[in-house]
Amino acid sequence: MVNTNPARGMRDFLPAQVRQREYVISIIKEVYESYGFEPLETPAVENLETLTGKYGEEGNQLIYKILKRGEKLDPNAPEKDLSDLALRYDLTVPLARVVANHKNDLPKFFKRYQIQPVWRADRPARGRYREFYQCDVDAIGSSSMIVEAELISAVCEILHKLGFKDFEIRLNHRKVLTGYLNEKGVSFEKHIDVLVVIDKLNKIGKNGVRQELINQGIPEETIDGIEELFNSFEDSGRSIEQWNNTFYLVAGNFFQSEEMTEGLDDFRSIGKYTTNSFAEGKVRFDISLARGLSYYTGAIMEIILTDGDFLGSIGGGGRYDGLIGMFGKEQIPACGFTLGLERILIVMEERGMFPKELNTNSADVLVTIWNEETIGESLKLANDLRQKGLRVFVYPESDKLGKQFKYASQINVPFVCVLGESELAENKVTLKNMETGEQETIERDEAAARVKIHKQNSQSKS
Amino acid sequence: MVNTNPARGMRDFLPAQVRQREYVISIIKEVYESYGFEPLETPAVENLETLTGKYGEEGNQLIYKILKRGEKLDPNAPEKDLSDLALRYDLTVPLARVVANHKNDLPKFFKRYQIQPVWRADRPARGRYREFYQCDVDAIGSSSMIVEAELISAVCEILHKLGFKDFEIRLNHRKVLTGYLNEKGVSFEKHIDVLVVIDKLNKIGKNGVRQELINQGIPEETIDGIEELFNSFEDSGRSIEQWNNTFYLVAGNFFQSEEMTEGLDDFRSIGKYTTNSFAEGKVRFDISLARGLSYYTGAIMEIILTDGDFLGSIGGGGRYDGLIGMFGKEQIPACGFTLGLERILIVMEERGMFPKELNTNSADVLVTIWNEETIGESLKLANDLRQKGLRVFVYPESDKLGKQFKYASQINVPFVCVLGESELAENKVTLKNMETGEQETIERDEAAARVKIHKQNSQSKS
Repeated sequence: MVNTNPARGMRDFLPAQVRQREYVISIIKEVYESYGFEPLETPAVENLETLTGKYGEEGNQLIYKILKRGEKLDPNAPEKDLSDLALRYDLTVPLARVVANHKNDLPKFFKRYQIQPVWRADRPARGRYREFYQCDVDAIGSSSMIVEAELISAVCEILHKLGFKDFEIRLNHRKVLTGYLNEKGVSFEKHIDVLVVIDKLNKIGKNGVRQELINQGIPEETIDGIEELFNSFEDSGRSIEQWNNTFYLVAGNFFQSEEMTEGLDDFRSIGKYTTNSFAEGKVRFDISLARGLSYYTGAIMEIILTDGDFLGSIGGGGRYDGLIGMFGKEQIPACGFTLGLERILIVMEERGMFPKELNTNSADVLVTIWNEETIGESLKLANDLRQKGLRVFVYPESDKLGKQFKYASQINVPFVCVLGESELAENKVTLKNMETGEQETIERDEAAARVKIHKQNSQSKS
Repeated sequence: MVNTNPARGMRDFLPAQVRQREYVISIIKEVYESYGFEPLETPAVENLETLTGKYGEEGNQLIYKILKRGEKLDPNAPEKDLSDLALRYDLTVPLARVVANHKNDLPKFFKRYQIQPVWRADRPARGRYREFYQCDVDAIGSSSMIVEAELISAVCEILHKLGFKDFEIRLNHRKVLTGYLNEKGVSFEKHIDVLVVIDKLNKIGKNGVRQELINQGIPEETIDGIEELFNSFEDSGRSIEQWNNTFYLVAGNFFQSEEMTEGLDDFRSIGKYTTNSFAEGKVRFDISLARGLSYYTGAIMEIILTDGDFLGSIGGGGRYDGLIGMFGKEQIPACGFTLGLERILIVMEERGMFPKELNTNSADVLVTIWNEETIGESLKLANDLRQKGLRVFVYPESDKLGKQFKYASQINVPFVCVLGESELAENKVTLKNMETGEQETIERDEAAARVKIHKQNSQSKS
């Protein structure tokens, strides 16, 4: 028996699903465009060397590698020599490569969005796929907090336009975290390992974090110090405004070093710059947010939904002023955000958030075939209706009319247009409204207008 | 030195290129939707077994295979055991898999379009890439020539809407070719090999075809017979109408067997059904068209441009009533067409066919930053302008105004909106038209309307 399923962890999208995906993507694009971001696309396949060393050991294991071809392939070679290409793992590393490659063709403040699939050989689970779309937005070339503020505002505007109300931006700063680790005497090389452990706080709890830090060789009194920091800011269910006010008070006691103060200044700027935007009242400073990626250097952000069953983030990002320099001679500051399309779609489906007028049928009208001799006339009618802006499905066979009506009803087409011998003789058509059952014989030229009026009415109603 | 190029034979698309691609794709989608075709998407990665044996030996060599991961990988295994997944090679085989898999969820006459990249490890050349988009349209479930006619009409409408005038559909029929080969005593197993050779006629010429057929073990007198058929229909520069009329006359002498007569009947139907459509006067019967793919069973089609430097087809397709049965229990008739996006783009670029109003700038207006203190106000202004439908680029730093204007001119933004201290005090803005150099200080609320009027005018002008 032939296996007709898609590959494990991957999905086929039937028409109704594609239309839902395109609806969400169109809103994301529209908002990003309104902020002056421009579209970029990169190949699904990258040279393996472009990707290796960018995602940490765990990420490296999840990269899909492509077998060398023809003469280049020596099946007896060790694993590392079997592959020279790999599937894109995220959209940030390809962006950094493109920016380094096109330094002279791109504007100084290059603002791009990119909505493409990425592939990870992860264990499939609910909401976790091996092929999934990322919707990235990045601003290159400036260290100003205007960048962070605009990214956060744009993302909040997208969620607002999709109909989300319960979203929050969690904001932290790598300089605050690393400044504190410095103060506590954690050596620089250990910082990322410690941050990766802290990032798991929600998953493994305080004791889990403590144990993993001990395993990393961090002294107990240092761990006590880290815990003290986190305890001082602990969530007690207050509103974002109260929470942030408390944050500034506590921060005054803790943030002594220059690095931590720089982080605090950035917090203040972002807070100020996001008022009068869709992010107003949505940004919560969260000292425990660490994010696992090693390339972040400044503000880090995560977007979460606070109500309902769905746990975890639906997007995140941060400033990475060092990554582009890994590909070129020059360090170029950069900051970006990624939205997880798949998770957004799952929640929107669960919450019934897709608009009713989202067109999921295949056509506005089905044109019937009377008999073999009249096929040409039916096709002519269909083309006329199309030129007037309608989507027209021509029934492809000269079956009995009852069968053609039944099919129209199955595929949920709102109108059927019959062109029989009598209609042809009088240059008329019979138009049946499949919803009401009404049918009338009208001038052939009037059919398109009749269907269009109905289409406009039903769209404005819903 | 780090290599920052994309992988060999693959391409990065910068914003202006993405916008050109999206323009063409949007027209293709719009036309297909108007014919009742629905969008489908399948994963980039397929199980290797899904693809093998579908594209012939030559195609098989060009499939990108993905290395097994983790425990599944035994580097000492023979090549065939190193891989279990592969990159999508075309969009037809995944469609056949999906139709077999979702037989009960899909409508009987499933009409789908699919616009996604495919990957082939081919030798890169001008217009030939290793990652390229195919724009496929297929109608499943009917053997009626209405299907062929609608596919051809839709494709012609797309080319018309893109601005092409010099296109022709070349049409042939596998039953005509195989019927003739049967008559000449060529055994059934040899048919595909012979057709693949005939398909090279334009590349290697008559003598080349003769030699290759001899190499295939075809007797000389059989080859004489094949050549006689082709000579009888040879191109002599006549109009399509004259040509087709001659074709019918000659066909009357040659097409004796039932199979060939069936093919001729299909020709007649397609000819009749494509009048009153964008295909009228564009379809030329071409007995030498063979197409290399083994799965075609009926009408085969190729679309070519007749003027200018560009040689070769920009799309093609045909009927394949046996392919879906390779994945399921049931034979389901099917017919499809693929448009080569990359070739269409190359020709449109060469011929300057992209509309002038195709928006290639990143924003409608750039908002300046006066100083650190006024950043919040500039961002507020930007958000107001966005809510009124404009695309707004906020200059991210508080540089000197001259520098900000220079940048606006570099990125080709038509307006700059200055919000200085005096403007702030009076609730005004200074709006500069970057094209004319005119600038005026106006009420803050009026800025959006001013830019929009200009935008509409310049779009209706071009």
